[in-house]
Order: sequence, then C-alpha cells, then structure tokens
Amino acid sequence: MQHKFKFRIMHSGGIFKKWRAALKAEIINVGTELLLGHTINTNAALIARKLAELGVDLYSVRVAGDNPQRLEAAIREALENNDIVIASGGLGPTADDITKECAAKAAGLPLVESGEGLEQLKEFFGSRPPDAGQLKQAMAPRGSIILKNPNGSAPGWAVPVKDGKYIFLLPGPPRELEPMLENELAPFLKRFSDKIIKSSVLRCFGAGEGRAAQKLGELLELSNPTVATYAGDGEMLVKITAKAGSAEEAEKLMSPVISEANARLGAVVYGRDVSGLPERVTGLLKEKKLSAATAESCTGGLLAAKITSQPGASEIFHLGVVTYSNEEKTKILSVQKSTLESFGAVSPQTAEEMAIGIKKLAGADLGVSITGIAGPDGGSAEKPVGLVYIALAADKVYINKMEPFGRYLGRDWVRKRAVLTALDMMRRFLASLPVCSVFEI
Amino acid sequence: MQHKFKFRIMHSGGIFKKWRAALKAEIINVGTELLLGHTINTNAALIARKLAELGVDLYSVRVAGDNPQRLEAAIREALENNDIVIASGGLGPTADDITKECAAKAAGLPLVESGEGLEQLKEFFGSRPPDAGQLKQAMAPRGSIILKNPNGSAPGWAVPVKDGKYIFLLPGPPRELEPMLENELAPFLKRFSDKIIKSSVLRCFGAGEGRAAQKLGELLELSNPTVATYAGDGEMLVKITAKAGSAEEAEKLMSPVISEANARLGAVVYGRDVSGLPERVTGLLKEKKLSAATAESCTGGLLAAKITSQPGASEIFHLGVVTYSNEEKTKILSVQKSTLESFGAVSPQTAEEMAIGIKKLAGADLGVSITGIAGPDGGSAEKPVGLVYIALAADKVYINKMEPFGRYLGRDWVRKRAVLTALDMMRRFLASLPVCSVFEI
Repeated sequence: MQHKFKFRIMHSGGIFKKWRAALKAEIINVGTELLLGHTINTNAALIARKLAELGVDLYSVRVAGDNPQRLEAAIREALENNDIVIASGGLGPTADDITKECAAKAAGLPLVESGEGLEQLKEFFGSRPPDAGQLKQAMAPRGSIILKNPNGSAPGWAVPVKDGKYIFLLPGPPRELEPMLENELAPFLKRFSDKIIKSSVLRCFGAGEGRAAQKLGELLELSNPTVATYAGDGEMLVKITAKAGSAEEAEKLMSPVISEANARLGAVVYGRDVSGLPERVTGLLKEKKLSAATAESCTGGLLAAKITSQPGASEIFHLGVVTYSNEEKTKILSVQKSTLESFGAVSPQTAEEMAIGIKKLAGADLGVSITGIAGPDGGSAEKPVGLVYIALAADKVYINKMEPFGRYLGRDWVRKRAVLTALDMMRRFLASLPVCSVFEI
Repeated sequence: MQHKFKFRIMHSGGIFKKWRAALKAEIINVGTELLLGHTINTNAALIARKLAELGVDLYSVRVAGDNPQRLEAAIREALENNDIVIASGGLGPTADDITKECAAKAAGLPLVESGEGLEQLKEFFGSRPPDAGQLKQAMAPRGSIILKNPNGSAPGWAVPVKDGKYIFLLPGPPRELEPMLENELAPFLKRFSDKIIKSSVLRCFGAGEGRAAQKLGELLELSNPTVATYAGDGEMLVKITAKAGSAEEAEKLMSPVISEANARLGAVVYGRDVSGLPERVTGLLKEKKLSAATAESCTGGLLAAKITSQPGASEIFHLGVVTYSNEEKTKILSVQKSTLESFGAVSPQTAEEMAIGIKKLAGADLGVSITGIAGPDGGSAEKPVGLVYIALAADKVYINKMEPFGRYLGRDWVRKRAVLTALDMMRRFLASLPVCSVFEI
C-alpha cells in the first residue's frame, strides 16, 4: 500500500513546483493544557524555526484544545488557507488523543491500520504485545506515510490530501518532536524544494539591539542574505540568512556580510553559531590549556553550574566555592577580616581577594569571583540592590562593577546578568581583548 | 468622552449576564518573531492562566505576524466566534506596531487620540515631550478604556465593540503584560462575573502522572472542584479548582478534596501552592533553625544555586563547594584517597565522605553531596552514564542511588534530576519522612 502513495508523490511535481515559489504553512498545537496555561508552547517555536530554515512561510500558529468539532474545524480551515498544516500533540494512546481522528475527518479520509505503524510499535514495545490503546497509535488516515519516532511509542504521519496539500501529524513531547522535525519532516519537505535556506548567528554580549542596529546600518536592509537583530536571554543575536541553490552558494553569499557585521560590531561578538558564552569560554580554556576556578557569593553556584554545563569541563575546571557568609570568605578564601570590616562583603576589595584566594586555593590559571546584592532585600542607599562586583585574577586582577541601571529587575535577573558578565570577562581575557569594558560596543 | 463609555458598560448588564454562563475567549499573540521561532510564546500561557482563574473559557490561541490584512482578518474572525478577544503585542511606537490599527478596522471604529493615553505618556516620559512615534501610543479605537501600564510607555486598551463584546489590547513584553493582567484586566473582567475560580496546586516529587492518577481514582472525575494532574519540570502537579460565589465558598469546596488527595498521595506531596522544592526546603530549614552545606561534583553548583535562588537563603546556607576533581575532593572535603582508589569518585562511599566532609567543613547541620556521571561521555558497563549517588549527612548518613532507567535523557536532565532528588531528600529529612525512598509513592 505504501508504494502506491510514494508513486503518487513522485509524480506530483506539478503541484510541488507551486510550493517552490511560496509554500504557506500553519501550525496547530493541540492540547487543553496549553489553553489552561499549564504548559508553555515551546513546540511552536521549535517547528517555526525548522520551517524558516526550510524556506517555508509560516502564516499562522493556532492552539486548539481536545474538543473534536473545534479541532476538526481548525484543521479544515488551516488546510483551506495553506499548503501544509503541521499539527503537534494528541497522537498518544488515550481517549483524549484525537488529532488523527480529526485530521482524517478534515481530509475526508478514513482511519486505517498502518503496517509500518504496527512495525514501529513492535520495535518500541519489543515482544510485549501492545494493548488496545497502544494499537491506536498504529492507525492513520489512509495513504499516510510514517514519520519514525525512535523516542516514543507514537509515530508521526505525513497525510497527503487533495490538491497536493499535506497534513503533518507530529508528537507533542518536545524530545520526540525535535528529532522528528530534523530527521523526518525536514528531509520530506526538502525533496519538494530547489532552494535551501542557511542561517548563521553571531552571538553578542554587552550591546543592546538599538546600538547594534546603528552599527550594522544598511546591512539590515540587505535582501539576500538578510541581517536581523534579536534579543536573546541577556544577550543579543545577529542572524544572517541566505537563500540559495546549495549550501556552498549560501555560504558564499553570507561570508562577506558576516565579516562586515563582525568588523562593525567588534569585541561584543563572542562567537558564530555557538550555543552561548559557556561553550565559548570552556572552548577557549581548552584551546589555551588553562584552568579556571570560581568563588561566588550572590550567584550561589550559578557560574560554576554554567561552566560545568559543558561536557568535558573537568579538563579546565576543578574547584568552585560558594562562600555565602563573611566567615566562609575568610576561612576558605583567606579574605582579610579587615577588608570585610572596612569595605564590606560587596566591594571591589573583597571581590579582588576572593578571586586571588580561589586562584591560589585551586592552583588555577584564572580565579573568578562574584559578590553582590541580588535582592530583593539587603540594599542600602550607598549599596543598592543590584550592585555586583566581579573580579578576574590572572596575570593581574580585573574588576567590573555591575550597577542597577533604572529599575531593579529581580533577584534572578541580577544573578543571571552577573554570571554572564563574569563569563564575558573570562572570554575577553582569553581572547586578549580589553576585559573591563564589557558594556561598551 | 470616557464617561460616556463607562455609562455604556454599566448599562450593558443584559449582555454581560450571558457572559456569566460561559464567556468565550480567544488570544491573538502578535509578532513576526513568534512565527520565525525566535521567541517562545510565553505570553499565551500567562494570559491563559489568568483567564482560567477568572473562569473564562479559552477556546483558541492564535499567533499572527505583522501583516495588516491577515491580522485584521484574524481579529475579525476571533470576534465572530468569541465574546472577548485578547491581543498582545504590537502596541509600540514603530511602524510595524499595527495591532491597534487592525483592531480598529476589525471593530469598525476610527482610531482617535485618547486624553488618558496622553496623560500616561506624560507620566512615563516626564517633562521630555514625546516624539511622533511615542504619540502613536496615545491613539486608540474610539471609546476605548485605558489599561494603565506603569512598566512601559504603551498603555493597553479595552475596546468595546458591538454586541457587548470586547477586544483587549495588551502589550507584548511579559514584564509589562503580567502586571497589566493582574491589575487592570482581571478587575475589569471580574465586574462582569458573579463566580470566582480558585485553584490550588499540590506539588509532588517522586511520582509519575500514571501512578498518581491510580491513587487519586474517582477524585479525578469530580466536577466542582475539579482535580487534574500535570507534568511539571521534573515534578508532578495536582491542581484542584473550584468555582464558587466567593473565595471562602471555593475554599470550603476544595478543602476536603485537598485533604483526601494529600492522604492518597502521601509523602510524595511536598507542598501546597509553593513555587518548588527550593522554597519548601529553605522554608523548612528556617523553620527548624538548621543550616545546610553542599558538596557537588557532576551537578557543578546547581544545587547550591537552587538553594540560593531563594531570598534570605543566607540564614540557612553558608558554604557550598564544587569539587570537580579527585584531588579537590581529597583536599577540600577530606575524602580518603583510598576510598577514591577502591570505589571510584562515583560511588556511595565517596558520596558519603563528601557529605560528611562538607558538613564538618561548614559546621552545618546538614551536609549534602552529589557525585555522578552526567555524560554524555565517561560512562562504563559497570557505571553507566546517568548513574548518580546522593548523600545526606545529618544524625546519620542517608544515601540514594539514581540510575539511568531506560534511555539516557541527556546531561542537563541528569543534573537537574539529581538536584531535585537531593532537595527532596532534604525535604523528607526535615519533615521526618523516610529519606531513602524518594522514587516510591
């Protein structure tokens, strides 16, 4: 049976040529928990990013609950207005998993048991015979092509409908959805496109979008590649995207623009296509065969946790301490009592002694310390909530002061921002850039 | 002018009575960045939770880009199918902020300058005269009622449209949206409802949804209050929701059901309406005037970071260490070299000595240690990736083994799960519950 439909796809070039121009898509995320606000819809962004990469135009995202009439109507309407509809969620074994049933009705197709679906179930459950609910997961609208799911029991489905349109049925759990997008949906859609979309991201710390946009100037008006700025999580991203016939051609289009953007933005760019400052910093430490150690107060271990979030961090990191009281700062890090008495725990002097203390204790090449007032309490007129000192001890000691500009944005924000600043100081030191001007472009 | 419309609302009781039965709502989140997948749509969940609290039925969520025709059509369609439409995003000063314009067209109302809007701008910008873009933020569909925004320049708007329906225009940035939902939208909508919805969440660790559902049994079929289970981030939540004429009445409905759910679930319930294990554990430590100290290997500071995420943690936490090498485990925590040689760093013996070592070093009442293989590398047949030992030293030493059931779910998952397990062991010890059966219900 599968063969028949493969044949049909292979001969539907006429329809798919239309897609090459401007393939329109809508996402439907299914789940009552999304309508109740219990779950944040991260799947929409996962799917949207993949579609953007594939050059598919996403026109709309919609969230539907598990009411069958409304879900069927939503799929039907989405099919009318788009070339492809991507539904995620509701493929599971229970009675309120109804996405396949509704898609079948919207497409005017009966639900049938799929041989490939049964095989996937057998692979997943082994010799244990699947029960009735599990067997439901092998059903699909007639003519559907299986999208394999090695990470869960419910396979996904590509459902061919009239006019060469498609409904894609994908699982809800992100760790099942994400690999299926990459390994099943993307190759499926790529066959129908003669263009590829390639993106590269320059990650920046220490510059706002406004200032970066000024520096980038007319680069932001290019059409291929396009250049756009985005606010990341405490960072700023510059995304360069090219459309071309091949990956090489796309790279050729992007390369001079990336160089120019790099030159204009300068030292705030910390990496191209890296996952974040932790990856960049641990990479630089490994490259230079240097080790780092951390001494934290207000960030309470977050800096060490970020460094050790990277696999293989044990090569470059052996010791971190969280000295959350004056006594521990003195006992563990040899901060002078007189320093704490004269200047207080939140002072450049204490930060310096903490950084030197941990460097010595760990026998590390770099000692990094953070001491500040994360709030919401504990501030004063002289030392307001949000004030943080960050020191890096290496050949000499570098100290940065992080001040609460404008509004206090909360304990989490202060802690996160202090950690990013510490990582950026490490990155700048390791890349032989000025260490103490992290907030300048 | 404002008075006229306040009058209109006050006299539209007939229409609002209908709302009391079943107020239907749709959310439209506006932003091209949402369609490109650059931003995760957290606003939908924020708004959805607030609507659920208010007893409003959310039927659909939709994401639209900044194409004016499509946005207008989406608002028009949402208005046809619902009593209220809540749009967030696109109220700002730039040319691609078009939500108000589209809402005005969909509602058949002209955009006019609002006196209250001008006042809010003046308050926000002070004596500096607003420029043309900023002035745009004082425009609203005729008859709109302002929703004040103390956290940004763009006010929100309640737009009365025909048939007693409303469009609510809210800002996009979550830190502007969230207070506006609480302080402006909720009081606005509450005037039209004679019922209130009250929810309470029992947070659980160590039980899956399936097992919990079995224990809860027929409680899950109640209609007022309702009882539902949700998967949290490494946890499980049981939400009890009542609809009643007053908060007291709602509490009276919920109270026996909460007691019964608590009794059935037993020790896996760690708190009612708390933010998570860190809040519960630091609360218990403060209550019992005990202190804790942490010694981490594979979790690299995450446990200390979770404890210190709570304001006032310095009362109960003074020292944490991340000993990421054998040498540091020996030097800082006095783990015996022979223990490391005979049993390895990832062993119950090492975990025990780390916990005892940090307890002694910090002079704390509780010493907690974590040592394991977070992966993806470093595993062996005998000690697979995902194996973690967690020890708690207090009156005696309690040790838990965390094994990789089934698939290895990644470095972040192992680290997060180990931290939650350590926190739950602390919670159980402090609440005089069995410490070493965290995975049982």
